Amino acid sequence: MAFVYKADPVRGAEWARLFAAKAPDIPFHIWPDTGDARHVRYLAAWLPPADIEQRFPKLEVLFSTGAGVDQIDLAALPPDLPVVRLAEPGVVAGMVEYVTMAVLTLHRQLPTYIRQQREACWAAHRVCPAAKRRVSVLGLGVLGCAVLQQLRTFGFQLAGWSRTRRQLDGVTCYAGADELPAMLSATDILVCLLPLTQETRGILGTPLFQQLARGASLVHAGRGAQLDHHALLDALESGWLSEAVLDVTDPEPLPANHPLWSHPKVLLTPHIASMTQPETAVELVLDNIRRHQAGAPLVGLVDRTRGY
Amino acid sequence: MAFVYKADPVRGAEWARLFAAKAPDIPFHIWPDTGDARHVRYLAAWLPPADIEQRFPKLEVLFSTGAGVDQIDLAALPPDLPVVRLAEPGVVAGMVEYVTMAVLTLHRQLPTYIRQQREACWAAHRVCPAAKRRVSVLGLGVLGCAVLQQLRTFGFQLAGWSRTRRQLDGVTCYAGADELPAMLSATDILVCLLPLTQETRGILGTPLFQQLARGASLVHAGRGAQLDHHALLDALESGWLSEAVLDVTDPEPLPANHPLWSHPKVLLTPHIASMTQPETAVELVLDNIRRHQAGAPLVGLVDRTRGY
Repeated sequence: MAFVYKADPVRGAEWARLFAAKAPDIPFHIWPDTGDARHVRYLAAWLPPADIEQRFPKLEVLFSTGAGVDQIDLAALPPDLPVVRLAEPGVVAGMVEYVTMAVLTLHRQLPTYIRQQREACWAAHRVCPAAKRRVSVLGLGVLGCAVLQQLRTFGFQLAGWSRTRRQLDGVTCYAGADELPAMLSATDILVCLLPLTQETRGILGTPLFQQLARGASLVHAGRGAQLDHHALLDALESGWLSEAVLDVTDPEPLPANHPLWSHPKVLLTPHIASMTQPETAVELVLDNIRRHQAGAPLVGLVDRTRGY
Repeated sequence: MAFVYKADPVRGAEWARLFAAKAPDIPFHIWPDTGDARHVRYLAAWLPPADIEQRFPKLEVLFSTGAGVDQIDLAALPPDLPVVRLAEPGVVAGMVEYVTMAVLTLHRQLPTYIRQQREACWAAHRVCPAAKRRVSVLGLGVLGCAVLQQLRTFGFQLAGWSRTRRQLDGVTCYAGADELPAMLSATDILVCLLPLTQETRGILGTPLFQQLARGASLVHAGRGAQLDHHALLDALESGWLSEAVLDVTDPEPLPANHPLWSHPKVLLTPHIASMTQPETAVELVLDNIRRHQAGAPLVGLVDRTRGY
């Protein structure tokens, strides 16, 4: 029985150190080293190899090293191979920090003050109490729920939207396409944490923006392909949207001549909202290996028909 | 019995509306209107008039419309006049939002990403887990305690310093000048929420900065006169300090040609961290008037020997 890691090699070295300390009985290899590939039962990969089935005939679980699996062509995998995504505590904490920072930044008009600073302009603007600021989250998975729980401590008016209905204390929950317009029309700051699927590709476009309250702002920490860049630029130009904080784009890296880089109403970060933390990721992987060996349900198992 | 408001007249109109609704029995005047000054028992002022004693011979309580009283010359007031400062819930909530935003901004390297955005540079930097980030707060009054309580929800390593010893769950507390160096040397992000007194004027200067961990950052939301601008610029130039988020300066507004405006490692906001919110301020004032009439202790009473 052996484990192969196929992603960023710098973090791979940390995974190797953690495996050596916590599970010295499991042979650990960093791609392209695989040891005897016939012994490999577990693979953690950002992108699995195209010949995964031939190369690892005894593979029992595939771990995505990210919080999502949209970078993986699920249809190209052996149909019964369990795929687990690492929405581990490090990823969750990072996302909570990032989205809280972004929401507070928009709530407290930091982009305006950054523009004023460039002009040496000392001008204060009224503060809107959190209780009057409506913050809505698209996507109520592990990340969306954790973000809402943190935002609640500031007293915002909160709403959340998901494919299937959820119940969350202190959050007005909406479900399905039919209920989305009602939430959007009562939203000042919209946070996107959706997984990338056929249904969510391009969802952040003109039809959605037009349903938002006029002057609303956007925090996008989902996936780049969910956002229509031209629609965003149009909405910012027309003033329908006030500001946007973007952590993801399509493509990534964003080309150097793209107008989002220099747009005065856009804060752009290079996909850093949340990163898998080796310490907590390895704990979750080892826990899942023990669960798998004991025949227990896996934590983070992907529903391949839903795509997340 | 009458009440006079002497501060920003726009907010004064909101105070008038709130008084009319909640305490219609109390005649309310907005300076320079005072009605018959001999009937004025309560004055809420940012700056009281120089002839306060002659003008309002029956004055019983002075409310500062700010969270501090450093703008008021306490020695020029009648010696037995109670002075109350409005660290009301709106001020506290605003400060919690601002400092959390500033700390997360530094923790998640937003100033670096803002600089990178100007250069169309897509480069991710490793995230330091909150559990390894040491955040220390100078000043453990109502504001400092509320800020620490919020920061705790992110899992930061927290410390706090005050003149007299405090105890706070999850916070390593230091007291007095002797213990300050120990806290500073274990600080990555220093937050200043001190009141302005003789002891704190200029406290954020070279001797203090040199005691911080190398590469530390500063959030200054106290009072402008606590910060030595030249010392800060030197510390940023030498790299001893990494970044600063400043909400207060001396003087305010900061002159347009001041080097802090354009410094790439400074985020500057125009004293907007926290503003008295009429709704909650009027509630606290009315509660204090009832307390005063009943002979009960006032909430926010200033100790005039300490100066806060």
